[in-house]
Amino acid sequence: MYRTHTCGELRLHHQGQQVTLAGWVQRIRKLGAITFVDVRDRFGITQLAFYEDSDKENFDKANELGREYVIQVTGIVRERDSKNPNLPTGDIEVVPHTLRILNASKTPPFTIEDETDGGDELRMKYRYLDLRRNPLKNNLMLRYRIGMEVRRYLDSLGFIDIETPFLIKSTPEGARDFVVPSRIHPGHFYALPQSPQTFKQLLMVAGFDRYYQIVRCFRDEDLRADRQPEFTQIDCEMAFVEQEDILQTFEGLVRHLLKEIKGIEVGPFPRMSYADAMRLYGCDKPDIRFGMQFVELNDIAKGFGFKVFDEAELVVAINAQGCAHYSRKQIDELMEYVRRPQIGAGGLAWMKRDENGLKSSFDKFYTPSQLEAIAEKAKVTNGDLLLILAGPEAKTRKALHELRMYMGEKLGLRKPDEFAPLWVLDFPLLEWDEETGRWHAMHHPFTSPKPEDIHLLDSDPGSVRANAYDMVLNGNEIGGGSIRIFDRQLQKKMFQLLGFSDEKAQEQFGFLMNAFEYGAPPHGGIAFGFDRLVALLGGHETIREFIAFPKNNAGRDLMIDAPSPIDEEQLQELHISTINPQV
Amino acid sequence: MYRTHTCGELRLHHQGQQVTLAGWVQRIRKLGAITFVDVRDRFGITQLAFYEDSDKENFDKANELGREYVIQVTGIVRERDSKNPNLPTGDIEVVPHTLRILNASKTPPFTIEDETDGGDELRMKYRYLDLRRNPLKNNLMLRYRIGMEVRRYLDSLGFIDIETPFLIKSTPEGARDFVVPSRIHPGHFYALPQSPQTFKQLLMVAGFDRYYQIVRCFRDEDLRADRQPEFTQIDCEMAFVEQEDILQTFEGLVRHLLKEIKGIEVGPFPRMSYADAMRLYGCDKPDIRFGMQFVELNDIAKGFGFKVFDEAELVVAINAQGCAHYSRKQIDELMEYVRRPQIGAGGLAWMKRDENGLKSSFDKFYTPSQLEAIAEKAKVTNGDLLLILAGPEAKTRKALHELRMYMGEKLGLRKPDEFAPLWVLDFPLLEWDEETGRWHAMHHPFTSPKPEDIHLLDSDPGSVRANAYDMVLNGNEIGGGSIRIFDRQLQKKMFQLLGFSDEKAQEQFGFLMNAFEYGAPPHGGIAFGFDRLVALLGGHETIREFIAFPKNNAGRDLMIDAPSPIDEEQLQELHISTINPQV
Repeated sequence: MYRTHTCGELRLHHQGQQVTLAGWVQRIRKLGAITFVDVRDRFGITQLAFYEDSDKENFDKANELGREYVIQVTGIVRERDSKNPNLPTGDIEVVPHTLRILNASKTPPFTIEDETDGGDELRMKYRYLDLRRNPLKNNLMLRYRIGMEVRRYLDSLGFIDIETPFLIKSTPEGARDFVVPSRIHPGHFYALPQSPQTFKQLLMVAGFDRYYQIVRCFRDEDLRADRQPEFTQIDCEMAFVEQEDILQTFEGLVRHLLKEIKGIEVGPFPRMSYADAMRLYGCDKPDIRFGMQFVELNDIAKGFGFKVFDEAELVVAINAQGCAHYSRKQIDELMEYVRRPQIGAGGLAWMKRDENGLKSSFDKFYTPSQLEAIAEKAKVTNGDLLLILAGPEAKTRKALHELRMYMGEKLGLRKPDEFAPLWVLDFPLLEWDEETGRWHAMHHPFTSPKPEDIHLLDSDPGSVRANAYDMVLNGNEIGGGSIRIFDRQLQKKMFQLLGFSDEKAQEQFGFLMNAFEYGAPPHGGIAFGFDRLVALLGGHETIREFIAFPKNNAGRDLMIDAPSPIDEEQLQELHISTINPQV
Repeated sequence: MYRTHTCGELRLHHQGQQVTLAGWVQRIRKLGAITFVDVRDRFGITQLAFYEDSDKENFDKANELGREYVIQVTGIVRERDSKNPNLPTGDIEVVPHTLRILNASKTPPFTIEDETDGGDELRMKYRYLDLRRNPLKNNLMLRYRIGMEVRRYLDSLGFIDIETPFLIKSTPEGARDFVVPSRIHPGHFYALPQSPQTFKQLLMVAGFDRYYQIVRCFRDEDLRADRQPEFTQIDCEMAFVEQEDILQTFEGLVRHLLKEIKGIEVGPFPRMSYADAMRLYGCDKPDIRFGMQFVELNDIAKGFGFKVFDEAELVVAINAQGCAHYSRKQIDELMEYVRRPQIGAGGLAWMKRDENGLKSSFDKFYTPSQLEAIAEKAKVTNGDLLLILAGPEAKTRKALHELRMYMGEKLGLRKPDEFAPLWVLDFPLLEWDEETGRWHAMHHPFTSPKPEDIHLLDSDPGSVRANAYDMVLNGNEIGGGSIRIFDRQLQKKMFQLLGFSDEKAQEQFGFLMNAFEYGAPPHGGIAFGFDRLVALLGGHETIREFIAFPKNNAGRDLMIDAPSPIDEEQLQELHISTINPQV
């Protein structure tokens, strides 16, 4: 036995006991004839005290320890002279009579402290050292606790975890697949799943009724900041349900997590149609921790000779309450923000009300009462600053959404310890893709249209709404799903709309369409982005710090150096050759 | 709401209630003016009764249903006239006043009954239908329950589930890797993990102390019967432990499972050295549900002029108690069995004692007292049949192991509802590979030698024993692991012994060896084959029936038709081309 207790366990009532501890040297302080060593493990930190007078041998040995040495000590627990109320073990210390160095350590390339001096690349290369730091350790502990609570909740409702295959078939729909060459079947490839979508639907056809899995998924996409080529989903599916059953069940899941993990009780989730989300927030995943809803001004701002507004398809504003004191410079800074190419607004108009009355950047085009009408519609009261964008509808909404989020951040309205979940409903079934000149499934090709909209499938596909729903938390989509098509004919029609030939549909999804011929039940489901959910519950928006061994923005694992070239022999066995390999 | 109750829920106390059920039509029986329909879901079967006299419309509709139709009914629960005590819902039936067909079904290609008429290929192609059958459904439910119990047990001991990456680096050690070409890095490849071995060791270096994961692993090996290219492991690692800690912890896990899942209490697991296992059973995973231990006869059977024995390196026997009545034909059949090429014994000698006294196949070479001495050593009492093999040591032991298992099966001694777990310990660290002419790690290169044997590493590597252990259940290895090397120098020496150049070791495992420089704790772990464990607890030895969507013996998923060719465009994006593709 290497230890009798962990380094987080000893309290005053252990006083006088002989204990054995093992762990890492966190800190060494020499105070004259006493050397204090803090020893750390996953469970906490305990102070060891070595006294020169009573035990010169161990005192000398302790003075030769370095940071991150792995040690084992046996000694007596005693009450500390000066207690540390910030440490659970702060009432006691251990006076060791034996000290054994289990392993030495070189000086780590960065400090193993809550705030470290290591850069991103270095910390990823030495991830095993970075993971020793409390923030990362706590993130992974949180991830574990959330995973277990997800399992507990779903188990209590009769869901069962069923493992689906990782070596599946490549489908051209959706994002790019990672593929795996087959050695046994030359020229053939498996694909890694982007999600277990078709398998979970087949499990419903098979009668499993309630399925879940916390499962790795893969997408070979160009990596944006904070995207990972492999990510984890909480994947769920239910049979014999309507949309309302799914909303209740999974709203319950997130409510359970907020309660168990954060100690927060939230009421029923608000619901918003996709159309309203776009109208009020310019975005299908609004952050409703703060207001600043869009106010459309077309009817009262256009037609008075101000060209910027008159020529715009849409004039729309947000009211930044209490920001009337913004200086010229501050407003110019906002102007610059919205003009950035990735946002692309042409400019920014404003209006404010303060002790000097109502003032705007377009005073000269309007009478005071016309200005007052705008102010009234946007509820510009004393101290408020109205920020107005004008331009083509879709682009302007998107830009104002960005500005709203920017202002929310600036004004401290996006509080990481506040949780405002929301359902967004009634998504369009299809979206038109200019590039390919055809309809794409907004969710995926298995999403069912709303029954009352089915008659529009031929005449006006773009206006058909789907039985689809997203769960949004603090401005992030954390989950999304739909009620599926379970009728072969409707599924076939859907593939036709999406431009699949019958042959192609059969080749790619024949097994699913065949399955629908043998008694498919009504079913639907949802998938949560587990990495994102954990990060949000951890009060962050970057997922990388919540994954044990993440890849960098180029999809590279800097610690193990992957991907990397493989042997020529391996390539031959797999019946492939490389083209212009990078060396 | 599609239903108020499941098909397994209604009892006599629901009598008189109006209920709504949904499920699949299992069976239709027409008895004059009544039609009975059994409706099935995951939870059970409920009988519906349609009466021609009182509800002609629904009666007619019911008569048009087919097997596996998906229906929804609303009706009143009533007590049955003739109860079915074999069915939990057998006291009641539902008399529907509405019947809705949710989906029709073609006639399934095989019967959805406990005993089906479908062949293997057909059942794999229509796996979603095969999974509707009780045996498979129950297997997956069992798998789920075992997984949850594993999590509950490990959670209670402070283990945490940490996800490790699937896109890692290819290593030439061990089995063949599946690889994944990188699109972003031309000519570079990820590999899919054969196990999270190095990552779990890094998690110990990172201080996570107790790790587990129920995780998919991949091996691109030539598929023997009942091997899958992707399989699931319960992967565990602990820091600050010695072998005894691991044995206690994971013996506890399997004891917990046997108790919770099978209701069986087992005592402390027996322990056997590898050497004893080979000596007494000719095998490192003996089935100890039955005796029939090997009896070595060299000292009393050799040297009397019987060439077969005299020229053999080893003469060794098993005593098949009660088989003295075996006929000539039966013994010939055993002879044929051991002569099969995959077993390869030259022949089979025998000795038996019955009412006519002692008789053997080699009587003429021995005096009665010499024969009696053999009989005495092998404890051949009245009614026993001794089966003897002779030949080169290793091959003969292996052949006798096969014969022992064959006899155990024949005599009904391998009872599927009996569980005899066992630890096999003290494995050799290394084994000599004739083909490559070098030492191979018997476990893996990170396994530590026993401290008392380290001095033999240079002089006699083959005799060094490892801190390695296998858990064996009913003749199957269900888990294996070791105490790891945590010293950089020893790890380096190990790689040298295994014929790695320093450069190669650095290239492949540099990150692990570097990690060992920064305070690696003593650690060790174990991995269980989850598929096998579940199959054994389910009373079977074939894993395929315990996996939702398995592949066939050619690594092919017959349902989705994977692997399959991919588009030329996809290949180009991945910077690879295929060589002699199969069409």
